[in-house]
Amino acid sequence: MARAEGRGPVNLAQKLISAHLVGGEMRPGEEIGLRIDQALIQDATGTMVMLELEALGLDRVRTELAAQYVDHNLLQSDERNMADHLFLRSACQRYGIWYSPPGNGVSHPTHMQYFGVPGKTMAGADSHTCAAGSLGMLAIGVGGLEVAMAMAGQPLYVTMPRIWGVRLTGELPDWVSAKDVILELLRRQGVSGGVHKIIEYHGPALGTLSAMDRHVIANMGAELGATTSVFPSDERVLEFLDAQGRAGDHVELAADPDAGYDLQDEIDLSALEPLIARPGSPGNVVPVLEAAGEPVHQVVVGSSANPGLRDFLVVAEMLRARQVHPQVSLEINPTSRQILADLAKSGAITALVEAGARIHQTGCLGCIGMGQAPAVGRNSLRTFPRNFPGRSGTRDDSVWLCSPETAAAAALTGAITDPRALGLEYPDVRPPRTVSAITGPLQPPLPIERARQVALVKADSIGSLPELDPLPDSLTLPIVLKVGDDVSTDEIMPAGARALPYRSNIAALAGFAFGQIDETYPERARAAGPHAIVGGRNYGQGSSREHAAIVPRHLGLRVVIAKSFARIHWQNLANFGVLALEFADEADYDRLAAGAELRLDGLREAVETGSEITADGVLLRHRLSPRQRAMVLAGGWIPQVRSAVHR
Amino acid sequence: MARAEGRGPVNLAQKLISAHLVGGEMRPGEEIGLRIDQALIQDATGTMVMLELEALGLDRVRTELAAQYVDHNLLQSDERNMADHLFLRSACQRYGIWYSPPGNGVSHPTHMQYFGVPGKTMAGADSHTCAAGSLGMLAIGVGGLEVAMAMAGQPLYVTMPRIWGVRLTGELPDWVSAKDVILELLRRQGVSGGVHKIIEYHGPALGTLSAMDRHVIANMGAELGATTSVFPSDERVLEFLDAQGRAGDHVELAADPDAGYDLQDEIDLSALEPLIARPGSPGNVVPVLEAAGEPVHQVVVGSSANPGLRDFLVVAEMLRARQVHPQVSLEINPTSRQILADLAKSGAITALVEAGARIHQTGCLGCIGMGQAPAVGRNSLRTFPRNFPGRSGTRDDSVWLCSPETAAAAALTGAITDPRALGLEYPDVRPPRTVSAITGPLQPPLPIERARQVALVKADSIGSLPELDPLPDSLTLPIVLKVGDDVSTDEIMPAGARALPYRSNIAALAGFAFGQIDETYPERARAAGPHAIVGGRNYGQGSSREHAAIVPRHLGLRVVIAKSFARIHWQNLANFGVLALEFADEADYDRLAAGAELRLDGLREAVETGSEITADGVLLRHRLSPRQRAMVLAGGWIPQVRSAVHR
Repeated sequence: MARAEGRGPVNLAQKLISAHLVGGEMRPGEEIGLRIDQALIQDATGTMVMLELEALGLDRVRTELAAQYVDHNLLQSDERNMADHLFLRSACQRYGIWYSPPGNGVSHPTHMQYFGVPGKTMAGADSHTCAAGSLGMLAIGVGGLEVAMAMAGQPLYVTMPRIWGVRLTGELPDWVSAKDVILELLRRQGVSGGVHKIIEYHGPALGTLSAMDRHVIANMGAELGATTSVFPSDERVLEFLDAQGRAGDHVELAADPDAGYDLQDEIDLSALEPLIARPGSPGNVVPVLEAAGEPVHQVVVGSSANPGLRDFLVVAEMLRARQVHPQVSLEINPTSRQILADLAKSGAITALVEAGARIHQTGCLGCIGMGQAPAVGRNSLRTFPRNFPGRSGTRDDSVWLCSPETAAAAALTGAITDPRALGLEYPDVRPPRTVSAITGPLQPPLPIERARQVALVKADSIGSLPELDPLPDSLTLPIVLKVGDDVSTDEIMPAGARALPYRSNIAALAGFAFGQIDETYPERARAAGPHAIVGGRNYGQGSSREHAAIVPRHLGLRVVIAKSFARIHWQNLANFGVLALEFADEADYDRLAAGAELRLDGLREAVETGSEITADGVLLRHRLSPRQRAMVLAGGWIPQVRSAVHR
Repeated sequence: MARAEGRGPVNLAQKLISAHLVGGEMRPGEEIGLRIDQALIQDATGTMVMLELEALGLDRVRTELAAQYVDHNLLQSDERNMADHLFLRSACQRYGIWYSPPGNGVSHPTHMQYFGVPGKTMAGADSHTCAAGSLGMLAIGVGGLEVAMAMAGQPLYVTMPRIWGVRLTGELPDWVSAKDVILELLRRQGVSGGVHKIIEYHGPALGTLSAMDRHVIANMGAELGATTSVFPSDERVLEFLDAQGRAGDHVELAADPDAGYDLQDEIDLSALEPLIARPGSPGNVVPVLEAAGEPVHQVVVGSSANPGLRDFLVVAEMLRARQVHPQVSLEINPTSRQILADLAKSGAITALVEAGARIHQTGCLGCIGMGQAPAVGRNSLRTFPRNFPGRSGTRDDSVWLCSPETAAAAALTGAITDPRALGLEYPDVRPPRTVSAITGPLQPPLPIERARQVALVKADSIGSLPELDPLPDSLTLPIVLKVGDDVSTDEIMPAGARALPYRSNIAALAGFAFGQIDETYPERARAAGPHAIVGGRNYGQGSSREHAAIVPRHLGLRVVIAKSFARIHWQNLANFGVLALEFADEADYDRLAAGAELRLDGLREAVETGSEITADGVLLRHRLSPRQRAMVLAGGWIPQVRSAVHR
């Protein structure tokens, strides 16, 4: 994209947005509509998306490309799991979607390897969709229904974010890698430091970071709450695409030389040291040295946060001809079919196996709480993006996040160890010039005539979308639950091995809602009927799962009142007709007690006009766009679309 | 072992028995006591064994070697699983047991690779322990408590079996392999054809079967209900041990040239064709040709029934440069760390990954219902030993058992296919001369002084053994459940992803008992208190899990009346004080209705003297040895030992 005529220099995020803008103005805080080129879904969100496509009566997806990955729900403990696969595959065939069956790997690196194209927009029903920013894409994680609408040719609506330029200088020292860069940003800014922002990386250090390094950094922009992250598309991106046999997909993309940013930050890579996030939050970042000596029982390498061949090779080289400490279970989760093949070809699998590592199937696995649950209170070091309490599958877990180097150091010593203290030579690991691009097991869309003959394969375990009624004008709502700051969607609607197999069935899933915070919520919510929840700051951070909106709504949730909302969950609430209100004065949080009853009157008009709402003397506001107001009034986006059709 | 002086020629089984005989006479049907050289446990049975060792107050195991493998319960969905690992590892350290952590692989091939020694006896808390017969061991699968007693230096008591000589002639044709040999025996003899027998293989075809081929055949002797299977220790065994770097462990062992057998059979390998067991039982064997064309959705290669490098290499070669049919999920479960390393080194992993296979962690996995559950009614072809209904984790499953060749053929075509019909050249696959013997990750026993300082690591999820009261003299027992023939321990006490995580906790496990047959059993049993179950033929076939005795006993089971019992479960019932009675006249099975009440009087004297028992006019017998009578009277083996100590 050449510099736009007749206006000043623009940054890359602005270029990508303006090239896809189909509605709204590019003013921070305003709702804009974006034309979407690609769509990404995974199995934990995909079954609901397919039910939504069915409810919308779609004939064929209208994005240039849509892909369904099976990477989350892989333990396959009973018949539900394979029933999901059969359903997803049939829906892919019906609607013109690529189907990536279990075994192909985690959606983000796999999409990057085979489908990512610089300059394209992507809507993904997974919060780490932003990882594609590594290739110069504008890739945004949203709720499943928004992806379904994008697949149906509708624009993706987001709040125009501020563009946050992060200038990278210097060069990473030995034993420090890309993960430490994003941990440094989390250390500085915390888990809501990126809310309503796009993080755009620039500066002289970019040339030292491979496309996969950038994936590590872009991926965990989600942990800062950012709308997305973007990197320029340069020589490093060309190298990556060339190794995949896709040099032809390369486009040169960068900010104009003298472009400005709404916010600025700078990281000198030379000054970084190995970092680690303490248990409980990706924002609890400290130098590894501060935690050194803590005994470790499990180390897991993999996930979309460290998915690259380099990340595994560095571990393999550190372990080659050595032994994993006998107290440690070292678990390797290859992130994609290609990575696994290249690890086997390079001899890394052999080195890891000989050292005592446990090699798992490709996929998300422990990152989403599908297996690999640690023992209570025993330290588990993981190269994952998230360590929200209980996400591992263990109630009182102790999960730390770190780089592959720091993970491997702990695997060797049985304790948290700064890898610089090992006295080893830093492995000189570089991605190979050509990689094992394995396209055979990716199942392409069917031609439309054949597609139209495909019937959806729906086992009994595949549920249906709940019916949603319009917003009443007056509501008396008991506050069934009151929670604190930074409650994640993992806490609202747990994933993990117990709940994830029910992802296609809202009614069955309902029993798990808020299970980690208050097990009595589902029963009390059902008994209460229409009810409210009160939350603190950054309510609904983390995973994009729309189940965290649908399930409580199914149980009667009509209003959430919080100090602030995480972006994706805020959208999901609107999509499913739950009114998200913010305190005009955060101090009023203390005035709303669990168990109290709130009376809300004149709701419909207040929502429609955007005026403030008073409940028991507490002043509340919503930030809904006119588009979102209509869907909340209708009870949700699907009933709104339906009523529009029948009008 | 030279031919014994002063008696006629003896077969190999007789030699192995007489070399270890410490009690009883070698007359079929009599109880004999055997000195045990080695002990094997796995995690699904091991936690209970460790609790038993603790209850027995053991200081250190007295077998030459004992090994604990973690291979069953690998999904690790919550904290219980790793808590089990910590407990097992601490108990291994305390009692002088080798600890094989998760990632090392399935117990039977791993034990064979590192510890198996021709001529040794082994007691194993796993029904497929008999696989070690491939090396000329006398290896018997029994309940956990019997292994605990053997570890404590006690003899293993078994009913002296008849020795069944199976003469092998000819040579396997292309596309037919060891699995087809044992499927042929199952086709002829059914799932109880081996009860109270040792299957001893001999004949000119032995030289054509590698030690690992013999493992395939010996392993599935369990499916015939055999006490065990034995092969001679010859050049093929030497080759195997030599490849492991253990040629020094080789001992030449064979039947005397003119030895006789109690029973005889012969299989001409040249005449075999690819066989397959239809869903429901390993005994439902038909030629693959008869089932050809059935659509297939899943193919799984692995398990102790096809654990060898050859078994995976033949699949890899069939798939090399081809693609798995898009309808099929081809799943590869490497059986041991060594096999995985050799598959990686040979390029087979790469070939499999490129063809679209899904590579899983090493272990039992789907074979024990830990993941890989198929969709309802969709055909799944597996190289596993068992396909009892529901064992896969799916209630209405459709699981077939076959060779790797037949499995790979279905993976290529998407339908059951005789591999001879593919038109491919039969891959010339041979085990390498040297293999990747990887001993580092096997954790050896601690020296005794250090061992004595080890405390058992017991999380809350580790339960304790139930208290067991003596057998009353009179009982009024409602028949809470009446079942048909061939009920397996999988049906009595399901394993699988739901139940297996509770294996260390009898009270928690109780809710799953008989879940597939009658979900109301646990509640009704608990309400009834002391109660009886009526069964058909071969009651308790399959897995050795003693939980299938302990859990119903915990729920009040005192008497099982059946037409006949499978060997291991019959022993487990006695070990936990449940009286196993057989109908004097099988026709009386029809006279005992579910719900009826049975009055049994003078029970203690009848058990003590071995006399018949009459209940409501039905004549019943037990086959308990004097040793077993004492434990049933005491309420079980542990209370018996305890009362002996305190007497």
